[in-house]
Amino acid sequence: MGSAREVLAAAASRDGLAVEFGDEPGGAATYLETGEPLVAGALERFRDEYDAVLKGPVGLPEVRKPDGTEAGVLGGVLRTGLDTYANVRPVRLLPGLRDSASPIDYVIVRENTEGLYLSRGSGVRNERAASDQLLMTRFGVERIVRFAFETARTRNGAPGDGVRRVTCVDKSNVLRSFAFFRDIFDEIAAEYPDVEADHRYTDAAAHDLVADPGHFDVLVTENFVGDMLSDLGAATVGGLGTCPSGNIGERTAYFEPVHGSAPSIAGKDQANPTSQLLTAAMLLDHVGATGTAKRITGAVEAAYADGAVRLNPNGTPTCGTRGVTAAVLSRL
Amino acid sequence: MGSAREVLAAAASRDGLAVEFGDEPGGAATYLETGEPLVAGALERFRDEYDAVLKGPVGLPEVRKPDGTEAGVLGGVLRTGLDTYANVRPVRLLPGLRDSASPIDYVIVRENTEGLYLSRGSGVRNERAASDQLLMTRFGVERIVRFAFETARTRNGAPGDGVRRVTCVDKSNVLRSFAFFRDIFDEIAAEYPDVEADHRYTDAAAHDLVADPGHFDVLVTENFVGDMLSDLGAATVGGLGTCPSGNIGERTAYFEPVHGSAPSIAGKDQANPTSQLLTAAMLLDHVGATGTAKRITGAVEAAYADGAVRLNPNGTPTCGTRGVTAAVLSRL
Ligand SMILES: CC(C)[C@H](C(=O)O)[C@@H](O)C(=O)O
Ligand SMILES: CC(C)[C@H](C(=O)O)[C@@H](O)C(=O)O
Repeated sequence: MGSAREVLAAAASRDGLAVEFGDEPGGAATYLETGEPLVAGALERFRDEYDAVLKGPVGLPEVRKPDGTEAGVLGGVLRTGLDTYANVRPVRLLPGLRDSASPIDYVIVRENTEGLYLSRGSGVRNERAASDQLLMTRFGVERIVRFAFETARTRNGAPGDGVRRVTCVDKSNVLRSFAFFRDIFDEIAAEYPDVEADHRYTDAAAHDLVADPGHFDVLVTENFVGDMLSDLGAATVGGLGTCPSGNIGERTAYFEPVHGSAPSIAGKDQANPTSQLLTAAMLLDHVGATGTAKRITGAVEAAYADGAVRLNPNGTPTCGTRGVTAAVLSRL
Repeated sequence: MGSAREVLAAAASRDGLAVEFGDEPGGAATYLETGEPLVAGALERFRDEYDAVLKGPVGLPEVRKPDGTEAGVLGGVLRTGLDTYANVRPVRLLPGLRDSASPIDYVIVRENTEGLYLSRGSGVRNERAASDQLLMTRFGVERIVRFAFETARTRNGAPGDGVRRVTCVDKSNVLRSFAFFRDIFDEIAAEYPDVEADHRYTDAAAHDLVADPGHFDVLVTENFVGDMLSDLGAATVGGLGTCPSGNIGERTAYFEPVHGSAPSIAGKDQANPTSQLLTAAMLLDHVGATGTAKRITGAVEAAYADGAVRLNPNGTPTCGTRGVTAAVLSRL
């Protein structure tokens, strides 16, 4: 996060853009101190006072609630609390990273407020059985599908064949909730004749994101499925350390890297800050600072393209966190 | 399927093993004719008369039930009907197929009778919302986890580092049903001190199966997650056309390729029969005809190793379905 703040501030100052930072503690550490994963009033400030929120990874696997789930995870609090219904996860192969048969450049639009995650904290659990619910509402599916089609119309970037398409990822062959999702998808698709409507079952999507990633432009899917597919996609482009994400609502939005807190390498100058840097660029783009966003993205791309940044097989940068930051700063 | 039957018969006759085949229609075509996806009495015959069942792909995407799900899919009928609770899906890189940093040789043990699939055909659906349930029982989780540890103890093959391990794949950080799954996993793991107990969240598993497949030995997970991960795994070793699977219960078992019916290439001499051939070998192994199973597996490996079989980027064999069959037959 330090890296992103530094780069964001430097890029903004080049463009004469005044940026004011606030800090709001949250996550596992805050939970241990206060019993709540977020300080009082933070949610309201995110909504009413800040233009946007840049979130760092804040979970700790060993900090758990009595029901066994993780206590420091802010997703439920923020995504539901701010109704940031669209989790936008671009997957793009940076220049110089590796040979790929075709360019990889797609966006996963993950529904962020319902689906299987609606059960978060409310599933049944006793000695003999446990259950969660996968719930989809017409309201929720319509708005996420529309968001996906709008993204296909407006985004920079395109799949290998240049065709703007939205792929509906569902398991409608087995589950009624997904059949419902797909039927609504088909209804909305009819309103966007300029965008190709495409379908993949969840298992086939997992296969094709590996075997034929160049096919995809925008994918839209349920919360839990989107969670898995976006990590999968990240693995095909150099790992979680390269992938940004945004959580977008009508009123507010927050931005975070796709990766977690990786406590084993925290503070060791090993983590790849690229994800957090591209996340800062997404944030700037969202608040209208398009030029400054491009400045950061361009500097990141340049640092990869000319070989200043190289990744180890495990996804950590050979030049360390500081090395990546310096390489990007000098190319802003 | 024709290919598998031919190779199975030829291999068996080499070993003086008498094999009697029966045919039981089922799937989309049977549903269209009779309103049921399986002919009357078939389930009982599978259980009481056959030693094992070799199933071909039988679905057709456009043949749907009123609730929108696919009508020809036999999984629900067979897996529940025969209580074949363990869906065993080996993922192995065949020799000669491609460069990989480490060998890929693991088995996904997918729970086959509960989880999200328990909702199959019983989810709620109306105009405004739809839902399915993810249910896990102690009985169901215990038996699948035990099955996974037994598999790790006994299987041929091992991960890159040779360590026997079982990876529990769950989303216990968010969902209570998965926290339940993981707790039971940890209980059972204590009974197997000779096998390493390992954990991955569902999203991390999707990532690592791409980024570090050599790590895995046996993975155990819920039904819906296992469905996605096994297709993903297949994509890393040349596609669905290379992956066999077995559905194993206490009393009976059936075996099927991981791929679907692929109506667009059916009958065109394009499909890769390898999956069906290795599936036949799994079946033989299961009924105790270990030598004949090895004969088939060995012939398949030889055909790949010496380059007689090569795959197109889309996974179809360059020599066609017949070509693969001939190459394997001549190497039995
Ligand atoms: C930390 C975890 C709860 C979270 C999620 O599952 O949504 C993360 O994986 C993500 O993708 O943002
Ligand atoms: C056809 C489909 C219902 C089935 C499943 O989801 O189980 C298939 O994908 C499989 O993996 O066997």
